[in-house]
Amino acid sequence: MPAKVDPEDAVKRLVAAIDEDRLWRRHLEIATFGETGRGGVNRQALSKAETEAKQAFLRWATAADYETGTDAIGNIFVRRAGAEPGAAPVVAGSHLDSQPTGGNFDGVYGVLAALEVLDAASGIGLGTKRGLEAVVWMNEEGARFQPSTMGSSVFAGEFPLAAALASQDRSGVTVEDALRAQMTVLDVEQVVPFGAPMAAYLEAHIEQGPILEATQKTIGVVTGIQGLRWFQIDVRGEEGHAGTTPHLGRRDAMAAAANMVTALQRLMRDESDRVRFTVGRFEVSPNSPNTIPGHVLFTIDFRHPGAETLRRLGDQVEAVCHDHAGGCDITVRQTIETPPATFDTAISDQIRAAAARQGLPNMDILSGATHDAKYMTGLCPTGMIFVPCEGGRSHTEIESATSGDLVAGARVLAEVMVRLACA
Amino acid sequence: MPAKVDPEDAVKRLVAAIDEDRLWRRHLEIATFGETGRGGVNRQALSKAETEAKQAFLRWATAADYETGTDAIGNIFVRRAGAEPGAAPVVAGSHLDSQPTGGNFDGVYGVLAALEVLDAASGIGLGTKRGLEAVVWMNEEGARFQPSTMGSSVFAGEFPLAAALASQDRSGVTVEDALRAQMTVLDVEQVVPFGAPMAAYLEAHIEQGPILEATQKTIGVVTGIQGLRWFQIDVRGEEGHAGTTPHLGRRDAMAAAANMVTALQRLMRDESDRVRFTVGRFEVSPNSPNTIPGHVLFTIDFRHPGAETLRRLGDQVEAVCHDHAGGCDITVRQTIETPPATFDTAISDQIRAAAARQGLPNMDILSGATHDAKYMTGLCPTGMIFVPCEGGRSHTEIESATSGDLVAGARVLAEVMVRLACA
Repeated sequence: MPAKVDPEDAVKRLVAAIDEDRLWRRHLEIATFGETGRGGVNRQALSKAETEAKQAFLRWATAADYETGTDAIGNIFVRRAGAEPGAAPVVAGSHLDSQPTGGNFDGVYGVLAALEVLDAASGIGLGTKRGLEAVVWMNEEGARFQPSTMGSSVFAGEFPLAAALASQDRSGVTVEDALRAQMTVLDVEQVVPFGAPMAAYLEAHIEQGPILEATQKTIGVVTGIQGLRWFQIDVRGEEGHAGTTPHLGRRDAMAAAANMVTALQRLMRDESDRVRFTVGRFEVSPNSPNTIPGHVLFTIDFRHPGAETLRRLGDQVEAVCHDHAGGCDITVRQTIETPPATFDTAISDQIRAAAARQGLPNMDILSGATHDAKYMTGLCPTGMIFVPCEGGRSHTEIESATSGDLVAGARVLAEVMVRLACA
Repeated sequence: MPAKVDPEDAVKRLVAAIDEDRLWRRHLEIATFGETGRGGVNRQALSKAETEAKQAFLRWATAADYETGTDAIGNIFVRRAGAEPGAAPVVAGSHLDSQPTGGNFDGVYGVLAALEVLDAASGIGLGTKRGLEAVVWMNEEGARFQPSTMGSSVFAGEFPLAAALASQDRSGVTVEDALRAQMTVLDVEQVVPFGAPMAAYLEAHIEQGPILEATQKTIGVVTGIQGLRWFQIDVRGEEGHAGTTPHLGRRDAMAAAANMVTALQRLMRDESDRVRFTVGRFEVSPNSPNTIPGHVLFTIDFRHPGAETLRRLGDQVEAVCHDHAGGCDITVRQTIETPPATFDTAISDQIRAAAARQGLPNMDILSGATHDAKYMTGLCPTGMIFVPCEGGRSHTEIESATSGDLVAGARVLAEVMVRLACA
């Protein structure tokens, strides 16, 4: 058993041991899994490419002799043990899945920054009271299987395991089947219970917005996450011949859905530009140029930091759609509703203080995107660290971040984790 | 060589020999090829199902000892020879391909009615001066390969063969490859030159509109086809994260395209309900709920009987799209433009007279849909016969027509064909 560690000394040595080159090389290696040839990746949850990324992660963990484990929804945990076996670990992580045309930093960075903290600690033989853990959450993006943040919400008891396992992709494959297939390939045992104790949870992430870059800050101290409501609108009209069916007799699902989207944009217009409203998925059937579409299905992603605005505008979605139904039968279903989240101020204070001590320009910031960290707020003190990304662009193949910013965020993460792990 | 035929006697015997039961059974058999299990078919051009339908057609033709042949774009011709080998034949037909969710009568009826005329003539051993031909045009629908009416327009010299062969479906398969594959299965030789002489062309078809049913007419004497313009609109914005990208910085291809479709509906609004405007195909990329779409491609199908309205409204499409581009880069490409067509009045007169003689309620009618017959108008006297379909519905799996109406149309077709073939 190591001698008692002086926290200030431990912080100094650990931060110095964070290896920018290793962190960057690992980003490049993960970027090969699912690469599209256009600078980005298609590494959707439980795909072959995502399995390969997790294999690489587990290979690095095993090489360093960390304990590995998974839970019943496929979250993967890697632990560098602490001196007190019963003490809850300090955990950090994110996800390795991507959007269909995603970039090389969203999610990946938080996983690799956490692993870098563990590896830097091992490099200097640092002993901590609490274990240090890196976690890879399953299906954060929700591109292939809905809902998003699936692994973390199931882990936190906020979404039922059975519903998650039954979720299907567009070809009818369930999470249960895809997860079983992934687990036959990964060398990891299912030993972690849902809600396993954590002393704290931290997540490093690119901002995915333009604010840090525009204000020339390196570190965003994330104080909370805006609230989110997802809707799925099903528009059923009647197919017909484009050349012969009079407009008076039409029930045109495409025309109705377009009018709904136009009217919803009007509803969501906002002078202060804080409302986030996106129709991201829009499927037309039969999707043939000379047939009146009989069916359209589209999604709404609506976010705002204020619970009252979320309620007021979100509750009008159904009525606006009905006002533009154009004779079609429509159903409006809310598929996700998560209130705005606030992170633990003690954790935010530590992040701010670490950035300041390391001489990094920083600011408090609210997260526009949802993250797995949101679901940890109910379990333990939680916080997030943002670093800039080019032009604020994310969920796109041209997403970009600098090695210097990534390592700066990892050093802040290291300082906060080691202080918490020594306490 | 048969004795000279008395036309009135030939008409009487031939019309009596038209076999309602055989005509209906053949519709049921063709409906098995590509059946969807929901009452309709998916039998797109050059698919396995469409090949099977053509095999059945050729089997019936071969059993009756007719000559068969094809041309370089895969139109299939079946001839019951006439007494004068050099005389141009009287031709009738339509197509066997369908929309992705198509019905059992659109196209099929015109092919089977033509074959029924040949078989009825054979059944009574009728000799005609001119040959009687049934034709199956290749790819009328244009659902899989654009443009539509491909086979007839290439046959008539109105669309280049090379462009038709190079047309690709969504998976990149060309017409050339798909046609070669179909021809290895079909037992038919390429012996028919493009523009091969015809004494006249006739096409029987369901109305695909509600007028005959509403006015309780059995036969529509088609006087012409409305004009058609197709457009393809390509909207290029920028992908981004739905939760973090401020609206001011967005170039949202989905939002822009929805606004274009809404504005185009306004442009095309028409008190007299003669304008036909349809957005049938609408593809969103990457089509993920929490990513701002970076790309939308959609089609416009716009038709009207008046050349002036076609020009005036169609020429505004591009400007309306640009007015709603919302910062996206857009290109508007016209992919098809066909002027309104007028059928030969001598043929229309014959159809009207035959219906009257047979005691069938009839009316003059304009075709809302484009048909292969349109391209024959430049080659020979051409006409069309419509019969009612339930509720005017077509290009849908619930398309329906009665056996009684179908056979009535076939009897009118028989009378007109035999009079032309004896002349």
